[in-house]
Amino acid sequence: MYPLAPGCFAPRNAWYVAAWSQEITRTPCERWILNQPIAFYRRQDGSAVALGGRCPHRHFPLGKSRVVGDDLECAYHSITFAPDGSCVRIPSQTQLPAVCRVATYPLVERWRWLWIWPGDAASADPALIPDHESLGLTDARFETVGDIYYPVPGRYHLMHDNLLDLSHLGYLHQSTIASDGIGAAREERADGPDWTESVRSVRAVACPPFFARQLNYDGAVDRRFGLRFHLPCIHAGFDEFHRAARTGTGDYLGSIRVYHAVTPGRLHDAHYFFAFGRDFAHGDAEFTTNMVAGLRIVLEEDMTATREIETMLQNLASAPNELLLRADTHCVLGRRRMEEMIRREQSDAN
Amino acid sequence: MYPLAPGCFAPRNAWYVAAWSQEITRTPCERWILNQPIAFYRRQDGSAVALGGRCPHRHFPLGKSRVVGDDLECAYHSITFAPDGSCVRIPSQTQLPAVCRVATYPLVERWRWLWIWPGDAASADPALIPDHESLGLTDARFETVGDIYYPVPGRYHLMHDNLLDLSHLGYLHQSTIASDGIGAAREERADGPDWTESVRSVRAVACPPFFARQLNYDGAVDRRFGLRFHLPCIHAGFDEFHRAARTGTGDYLGSIRVYHAVTPGRLHDAHYFFAFGRDFAHGDAEFTTNMVAGLRIVLEEDMTATREIETMLQNLASAPNELLLRADTHCVLGRRRMEEMIRREQSDAN
Amino acid sequence: MYPLAPGCFAPRNAWYVAAWSQEITRTPCERWILNQPIAFYRRQDGSAVALGGRCPHRHFPLGKSRVVGDDLECAYHSITFAPDGSCVRIPSQTQLPAVCRVATYPLVERWRWLWIWPGDAASADPALIPDHESLGLTDARFETVGDIYYPVPGRYHLMHDNLLDLSHLGYLHQSTIASDGIGAAREERADGPDWTESVRSVRAVACPPFFARQLNYDGAVDRRFGLRFHLPCIHAGFDEFHRAARTGTGDYLGSIRVYHAVTPGRLHDAHYFFAFGRDFAHGDAEFTTNMVAGLRIVLEEDMTATREIETMLQNLASAPNELLLRADTHCVLGRRRMEEMIRREQSDAN
Repeated sequence: MYPLAPGCFAPRNAWYVAAWSQEITRTPCERWILNQPIAFYRRQDGSAVALGGRCPHRHFPLGKSRVVGDDLECAYHSITFAPDGSCVRIPSQTQLPAVCRVATYPLVERWRWLWIWPGDAASADPALIPDHESLGLTDARFETVGDIYYPVPGRYHLMHDNLLDLSHLGYLHQSTIASDGIGAAREERADGPDWTESVRSVRAVACPPFFARQLNYDGAVDRRFGLRFHLPCIHAGFDEFHRAARTGTGDYLGSIRVYHAVTPGRLHDAHYFFAFGRDFAHGDAEFTTNMVAGLRIVLEEDMTATREIETMLQNLASAPNELLLRADTHCVLGRRRMEEMIRREQSDAN
Repeated sequence: MYPLAPGCFAPRNAWYVAAWSQEITRTPCERWILNQPIAFYRRQDGSAVALGGRCPHRHFPLGKSRVVGDDLECAYHSITFAPDGSCVRIPSQTQLPAVCRVATYPLVERWRWLWIWPGDAASADPALIPDHESLGLTDARFETVGDIYYPVPGRYHLMHDNLLDLSHLGYLHQSTIASDGIGAAREERADGPDWTESVRSVRAVACPPFFARQLNYDGAVDRRFGLRFHLPCIHAGFDEFHRAARTGTGDYLGSIRVYHAVTPGRLHDAHYFFAFGRDFAHGDAEFTTNMVAGLRIVLEEDMTATREIETMLQNLASAPNELLLRADTHCVLGRRRMEEMIRREQSDAN
Repeated sequence: MYPLAPGCFAPRNAWYVAAWSQEITRTPCERWILNQPIAFYRRQDGSAVALGGRCPHRHFPLGKSRVVGDDLECAYHSITFAPDGSCVRIPSQTQLPAVCRVATYPLVERWRWLWIWPGDAASADPALIPDHESLGLTDARFETVGDIYYPVPGRYHLMHDNLLDLSHLGYLHQSTIASDGIGAAREERADGPDWTESVRSVRAVACPPFFARQLNYDGAVDRRFGLRFHLPCIHAGFDEFHRAARTGTGDYLGSIRVYHAVTPGRLHDAHYFFAFGRDFAHGDAEFTTNMVAGLRIVLEEDMTATREIETMLQNLASAPNELLLRADTHCVLGRRRMEEMIRREQSDAN
């Protein structure tokens, strides 16, 4: 499906962010991931569980049912499933058929995130989850704020397209985090076995309106920012500011770290989890509140762009041709690597 | 269509409840039944009429048009149809072509219900309507309350599935009409040429919260309840309470009769008509009002389950496999008998 | 698509009303025309521009972007297009590939209307726009009021069906502009190379409620009204009232001119532009306001009929047969001429 090649939706055998820790409680929660309904809840000991979200008996959503002890009981006829997916109770019979079971999904809680593996459980190796320390999430120099969630009003890869080409900062986010010269800035690209990175620098530009408020500085800045896409789910990066210097490096003003996790939902929607850290104004709750409010404006501009493009694609009679620009090198590479992951799975399955 | 076999929607040659008497007036009303638009209204003498609801000229809905005398006049160009479906007026021409006509549907008003026959009028025998006296509707020991209508937010057979397996009383309706032990209770099943019945008894259980209020009794009860499905439309049954007795039968507390009529609408919606009778607190209008309010909570739980399952089915990429349990014997039998009715019609048509 | 033959949607090589002049400003506006997204805006000199409304880079709607100077800049990555459709700026590269361009549509502003040619620009001859003087739009005897726009909640040709058969005035508009005898009135038909006309007269009928208020006269009238359909977009006509006279012509009471432009939108919606002129009560703003309010009731009856028929068509399992009446001669002729225009284009394209 566009923007990937026909027949390509999303890699299954991979870790995706499923939820913020605080979203999953003793009351079950339904979330569609990779076009499958999944029910999330917590055991009595607090550990999180992800089960197939459709009761195999009458298709009632288990994510809208109830937790009893460590088990999930369908709200319709009380058929009950244990965290391992097996059926532990059918009120109307004592024999529990082995075929009466729901899928169970490997789930790892790390930092404030629940990571899910929607594919073959046997291959779910937690070591494949991007390391949170090297992502920077647990770096003490940064006060990290999370728990920002948006339902994405469009197919998930539109969000990756957005994040793979940060030149849009200069335009879509004109009134908030734009700088002059972003489009023309040279892109430094790098690739690893499971990631691909793009970084840009601009020099001697006006401090973007949002950061001028945060850094309490409205002079010229040298700015450096970028994202590393850890396929297929999370983009982690930074946005760093120095006072503009004619030569060398000016005084350091501050920087933020950003974390964008995108998880496919149904065919035409997705989940978006955003966190950020700052290395200034630590411990100031009001500052945090204001900063979150400002960033929400930026994030909602991305949601709007995604909704508009999804609507355009659905209104068009046929899939449109697309014009690729030099600035799309990184975006196209990201797409190609996603397609490779998907095709590798498809050929492994044969 | 699920939950029936592919190619099976609904029997056409059968009586269905189309409306409550009071719903049909001199102002026409549109209702889709078995995926056909139908216009209902009353003649000057009060008798009800059901005509094809699409003007054959420009497809304007006749159910949103107007009644003139005994006829139905399209609101767009005033083409007018008599209760026999024939065209009696085309303002722009004097000759009335014989092909200008709408379907007419056999309609029988009995008790407070209008029964319609959506199939071949020639075979519409009113004697096939379930006898209201034997249904219990006209039993003077019961004060019967009707006129409860819900548009069903899902395909009609999900409601039959619901009613064919009353074990759901113990779970979906946990806070209202549940009793312990319903799931495990032995089911007494019986079949007739045009019906199939399921009855369950539970002994020495707490009086369900709803009935404790109605019967003003919160001790232990012996309860017996069941439904007879008169195919393809109506389920009639009872719910009877005695004080729990160690042996024999305890003091009689009271009972209700329930009547559930389900009529297919469009492919993904339906009509639901509910009535009930009680053999206690006769003539107490406030009691009736409170009892209706309590039962509406129960009925809305069924509507919610139906909406959730319909949504699940539509979101799934393909029709799901279904797990059948022992408690589904009666439900599966009901489905099979519906399919037989449909297939008999299909083979008669060849 | 019904009501045209399968495979026929709408003529492309023709002038259509795209907007009221006042709707198009320096802030761009998106409108789907003939199932294509189009972005409209004005240059600094006030002249209007119509460009393909989808950025070829990432499909963001240009009609929801921004105007910079005379150009249209995509809100997502600032790719910028000149009024001739060529790309004039890609921030991330200096070379502007020739394939990076959007369609440009011939646009002519005449009276208060913007006319667009959605087909091959080479054949767009402004002389083919119906002459506004002969339409009567600029006739000084009439005070003309325009700028009435409705989004049509149905496929565009349902509006042409409506306007091609004015016998509906007697029925759909019963409480406003109906007269007795309209259905039976003889229709005077005429045809030209690019138009087709239908006129009706009724004598000695009650003045319709709406006109009784406007003309301040509630006696009997002789009425003459009709529309000329200038294919494929605009219907222009009149509605003229004299005091009823036994022989010859009674005192003149007044008349209105009406202008209905219908432009295909997406497959199941359209645009409707309405103007009218009156030869009485000139210069009275309050009179105008009241008259517009009264006519809006009439127009909304047409919108309702269109919505109802569109809904009916979409709910039906298959395209319905249609009954044609004698009064449909003109409507059917209009459809046939639309189909001829479409087929001529299709065969020219081969």
